[in-house]
Formats: sequence, structure tokens, C-alpha cells
Amino acid sequence: MKIVIIGGGIAGVSAATAAREVSDAAEVTLISEENYYPYYRLKLSEYLSGELDEESLLLHPPSWYEERKIKVILGKKVTGARLESRELTLHDGTIIPFDRLVLTTGSYAFKPPVTGSNLAGVYTLRNLEDLKAIRDKAGSAKKAQVIGGGVLGLEVAYYLGKRGIEVGVVEHNDRLLPRQVDQEGSEILANAAKTSGVELYLAKDLDRIEGVERVEKIVFKDGSEIPADMVIFSTGVRPYLEVANMLSLGVNRGIIVNKYMVTSRENIYAAGDVAEFEGQMPGIWPVAMEQGKIAGANAAGASKVYNPIPPQNVLKVFGKTVFSIGTVSGEGVTSRREDQGDNFIKYYYQDGKLVGALLIGDVKLVNEVRKLFS
Amino acid sequence: MKIVIIGGGIAGVSAATAAREVSDAAEVTLISEENYYPYYRLKLSEYLSGELDEESLLLHPPSWYEERKIKVILGKKVTGARLESRELTLHDGTIIPFDRLVLTTGSYAFKPPVTGSNLAGVYTLRNLEDLKAIRDKAGSAKKAQVIGGGVLGLEVAYYLGKRGIEVGVVEHNDRLLPRQVDQEGSEILANAAKTSGVELYLAKDLDRIEGVERVEKIVFKDGSEIPADMVIFSTGVRPYLEVANMLSLGVNRGIIVNKYMVTSRENIYAAGDVAEFEGQMPGIWPVAMEQGKIAGANAAGASKVYNPIPPQNVLKVFGKTVFSIGTVSGEGVTSRREDQGDNFIKYYYQDGKLVGALLIGDVKLVNEVRKLFS
Repeated sequence: MKIVIIGGGIAGVSAATAAREVSDAAEVTLISEENYYPYYRLKLSEYLSGELDEESLLLHPPSWYEERKIKVILGKKVTGARLESRELTLHDGTIIPFDRLVLTTGSYAFKPPVTGSNLAGVYTLRNLEDLKAIRDKAGSAKKAQVIGGGVLGLEVAYYLGKRGIEVGVVEHNDRLLPRQVDQEGSEILANAAKTSGVELYLAKDLDRIEGVERVEKIVFKDGSEIPADMVIFSTGVRPYLEVANMLSLGVNRGIIVNKYMVTSRENIYAAGDVAEFEGQMPGIWPVAMEQGKIAGANAAGASKVYNPIPPQNVLKVFGKTVFSIGTVSGEGVTSRREDQGDNFIKYYYQDGKLVGALLIGDVKLVNEVRKLFS
Repeated sequence: MKIVIIGGGIAGVSAATAAREVSDAAEVTLISEENYYPYYRLKLSEYLSGELDEESLLLHPPSWYEERKIKVILGKKVTGARLESRELTLHDGTIIPFDRLVLTTGSYAFKPPVTGSNLAGVYTLRNLEDLKAIRDKAGSAKKAQVIGGGVLGLEVAYYLGKRGIEVGVVEHNDRLLPRQVDQEGSEILANAAKTSGVELYLAKDLDRIEGVERVEKIVFKDGSEIPADMVIFSTGVRPYLEVANMLSLGVNRGIIVNKYMVTSRENIYAAGDVAEFEGQMPGIWPVAMEQGKIAGANAAGASKVYNPIPPQNVLKVFGKTVFSIGTVSGEGVTSRREDQGDNFIKYYYQDGKLVGALLIGDVKLVNEVRKLFS
């Protein structure tokens, strides 16, 4: 049986591994558009400062895939997919036959279509190529503006700041990490950011980016402007749906999957950032890993069920670890603060049940808090 | 899908566990003839002395099966099996439908058909009922003769000896553990046994057991005799083939299986002591566990391949741990002794390749030696 996995993110690697674990007999092929063996995407931002060690970024060395007889095809884009003949076409014309298909095509960084967003000096950080481009530019940059005060935006600001670049963070909301932490958490982070020398522009909406050949400044909707020789957008991601559309799969925001990670067509699975399960697209690593595992195992013959993993994020910036899990805001959510020493810890309850937690402090407490939700 | 596993030994439990791991959806049922939840069969002999703690003998508490939705049917014998209607009949008339069947029916203790072998006071030790019967009798016994100087026989002798019973071991061969250790190893063991007060009758063939109502003595083929108020046979095992025969499966000495643990009929798997793979029936725990895992996983949809595990035995008697693995005798096998301190260690080579090892000494070295063979 030929199992073909499209996408070399953690969902794809996880699917390939699980498929091999379930079946010693299946041919397992992993196709990635990127030129690199699958890597820790979450670590990209920390390599904005310091040396870039590509090997330590890899999830596994190439030999690891060989040992498991997982065929890895790098740097190839899927440009055709036919269900009847069960074949894919790659951009170089190669035909790849399949019996089962797992779509782990992931997501790309969304760049809002503002004027000037295509100027030189404007970046997103989603893959290793992006990282290299930003590092190249960062060598000579003086002032960077990060658009988006979410997890990635704060990391980018932190690590660019560590390089000695003056950094600002622009956030549409009136506080940082609005989706992951509550008001109190945002304030702690904002103070830490300012102490580190990061300028915050909260409740600010970007109107346009200006510059002659390269970015020179950004202009807000209120008319104010700030200088910049680099702009990095961290304004969310969008799923790669091209292959799903070639196959006419059922798609809402993402590819709709059931609890077996099966799409609207049998023998076609989806997992990770591109998959939508029960209306949710959390877009986080542990979910992609678990969904990939289920999809890959089931493609190889298993019948495993995906048990949703609570939304969670770990962020290490400005000398603090921020860990949030579950629900930390919303109708009828109450909270109780239970600090431990210097560690800010808050638990969130709904209908008397623990539904979320927020930790700002020592990374060692992360697992302790996470355990409450497993 | 209904997966039914017949036999509550380690192969059966391992199959049930693996089936559940591969499929959250399958109905998994484990049927055991015994009245007890699956237990550590290898530990039975050590409970010949000391207190019998049935709970600590169990592989898992009953709740463990519930949590995994593995339905366990105890104390029921399969008396009918029909492929066409995919149904089993239990001895109480219950009908059990199945889609996939895993036969882990195991083996029973073989008692050679000598005169007197059915007298009261004659035992085998294969299951918990046997253990209880022997313990009952052992309370008043003075002199026990163990027939068979293999792994189980030596253990029985050792633990009965610990109770203060006078024990003898009768072995047809001229040395102990003839299949697991070499001449030198046998001698070390024989000395240890004698030091512990165990009488050895080597190169002796049992002719008959005598007694009026109960066993009183055993008589050898050479006419000599020794007194006994207990006789325990440890003279090998034979596979339970009844269910295999009801289903007309291909059988040689055991149920013939391929590397997927599939029998001659699709959707019917076998594993453990009852299965014959590539002519081998090692009848040991780690093989049963691994084969069960493969059979159960594949019954649930996986396509895993069984990689034969080298024959191995661990025996702890007379203050010594005896561990043997692989080939320790035969045509063209050479050995090299590499003792470590008080530990007797011997490696065996064939065509310049390491093929076996024998360790008599500290249990801590077992894993170190075993690693060389994985």
C-alpha cells in the first residue's frame, strides 16, 4: 500500500512516523515543498539572534527517515492530484501514485494587503527561507517594526532586540497576546517588553508602509508614523488549500475532517494547520502532532480517534516564560490567582470546572500546570 | 469491528492491548478459560514458598481493562467455532460473534503417560489452580520429586526446598538445563543445587510412580527407586489446538503463522505458545508478548511484521541468576569465557558471529548481555 503525505511540517512527520509504526509493509512517502528536512518551526524565531545552526533545527537527521524507510521528497510542489487514477503530479512533472493520501500542507503567514506590504524590507517569518532573509537584512538594520503582538510577534521582537536592533511592536488590540492571556497577563508582559527596550504601539491600526525602494516608515490609520528599515508581519496564518481544492474535498475555513482525520473523501486524510475539526483550527504544534499521528496511523490501517488537545502556547520572551492553556476569557469565566513565589499563576473556571490556566514565570512549572489538563 | 481473542496468557493480553492501541473503534473481547484475570505465569513458581498474593500476580487490575474498553470473559471455554457465520460458542452456550479472531490459546503442561501419573499427589505447575493445589499439599509434604531439570523444574525444586521440603530433581539428560546452558553451566548449577540440599538424579529415566491411594515412591527404569509424597512433572508443554482444529487451520506442531501472525485463513491470527513461526515454537514469554502485539495490531488493521526474538531464559535459583540467550551449543559453535568478577559469562560464536551468551551471576548484568542481541 502506498501512503503519500503532502507537507513536511510536524503534522506530516508525525503522520509518516505513525504510518510506519502501524504498517511495516506500507510504502510511506513524505513530500515537502521546502528544501530542508522537516525542522522545529517553533524554534525559528530564536535563531533571529545568535548563530544559525541548521542541523540542530532538524526534527531528525536524514538517516532517521532512511532507517524507517520513509521516502522524503524535498523541494517539490504538488501541482496536480487526481482521485480516479490515484496520482499526484509534482511541479517537475514527476507522477506519484498513491493509495492513501494525507494532507498536512499546513499554513502560510498572512500579510494584510496594505499599501507598501511588498516593499523590500517587509517580511514574514514562517519558514527557514524567511528566517535566512530576515537574518540577512538584520545585519544592517537599525529599526524594526513588528506588526502583531501575538506569540510570534513578541518572539520576533525579543530576538531582534537581542541583536541590538531597536524594535517596536504594533498591536491592533489594546493589549498584548489578547487571545492567550488576560488583562493582567498582558500588563506583566507589556512591562517586561518595555523594560527590555521594546516600544509598544497598542490599539494602533496600520494604514500603509512607505518607502522609495525599501521600507522607510509605517503609517497608522490615525496619521501618526514611525520609522522602520524592517517590517515583520506576524498577523496570523492561512491554510494551504490548493491540493484540497484539486481533490474537491469538503472545505470550510480548513479541510473538514472527522474524528478519524478522514476528509470528505475516503482514503484521504488531513491533519495539522490545514485541517478543521469540529470547527476548530488551533494552528498549534501539539495539535498538529497529535492529528498527524491519528491521520498517519489510520491511513496505514488503524482506526484511532482524535481527542482534541486543549489550546495552549508557550512563549519565552523578555526573561519570562508565558504558558497559557485552555480558556482564559469569555462569558462566565472566573479566575483565581494562586501565585507560587515569583510565579504568576492564574486558574480559570467555568460552571465550577477548571477550564484554563495562565502561568508567567518559571518554565519548570509548565508541565505541572499542563498535567491538570490531560 | 469485532476482534475476539481466545486465551488469557501474555500473548492474549498483548494482542488485546495492541488491538486497542491501533483501533479506538474496534470491540475488543478477551476470552479466558481461567477464572482469574491474566497474571504473570512466570511468577507462579516463586509463590510455591511464602504467602500467595493473588493481586500482585495480576498483569493489570480489572479496572485497567475497563479503562481500555477491553471486554474480559473469564472462566469460559470455547467449544465451537464457525468461520462461515463468524461465531464462537462458549461452553455455557453463549454465542460470541467475531470479525477477526486471535488465537492465543497457549499450551498445557505435558505429563508423560507413565503408570501412576494420575495418583493423588502428582502435579504439574502451569496455572494458578495448579499452584493452589500444590501449595495445599505442600503444607504436609515431606519429600517432593521434581521430574525434569529444565527451567521450571529447577524453580519448583528451589522454592519447594525453601519451604523446608526435601526435594529431588530427576533429569533424563546427564546434566541440568540441557537446552539452555552448556556443560560448564550445568555443573555450576548442579553444585549450587546440591549446596542448597537438592538431590539430583541425572541420566535417570522414570519408569513409574507407585502408591496405594497416593504417590509413595517413584521407580526408575534401572530398577532403583526413591520415596516421594509429591511428584511434580515439569516435562515440557504442548499447544492447545482444539480451536485451531475446529477452524481447520493449517497446523504442524503448532498453528502455522506467517510474519504478520496470520494463520492459513485470513482474519484469523495466532500468537504465543500455540503459534508456529518458521518452524519455531520457543514457548517463552517475550516471544508470546511480541507475537501477541503483532497479531492484535494487525487484527485491528495494522500490517506489522514479527521480527523473531532470540530464544532466552532467565532463571533465579539457588542464589544464582542464570540467563541464556541465543545459541549456546551445536555444530561449529565456539565459546569464549569472559567472566566479570564472580560472574560467569560465556559468549558463543558461529562463523565468527556472536550467536549466544550464558550468564550465571548478578541479575544486573542480564540487560547488559541482552542488549548485545537486540
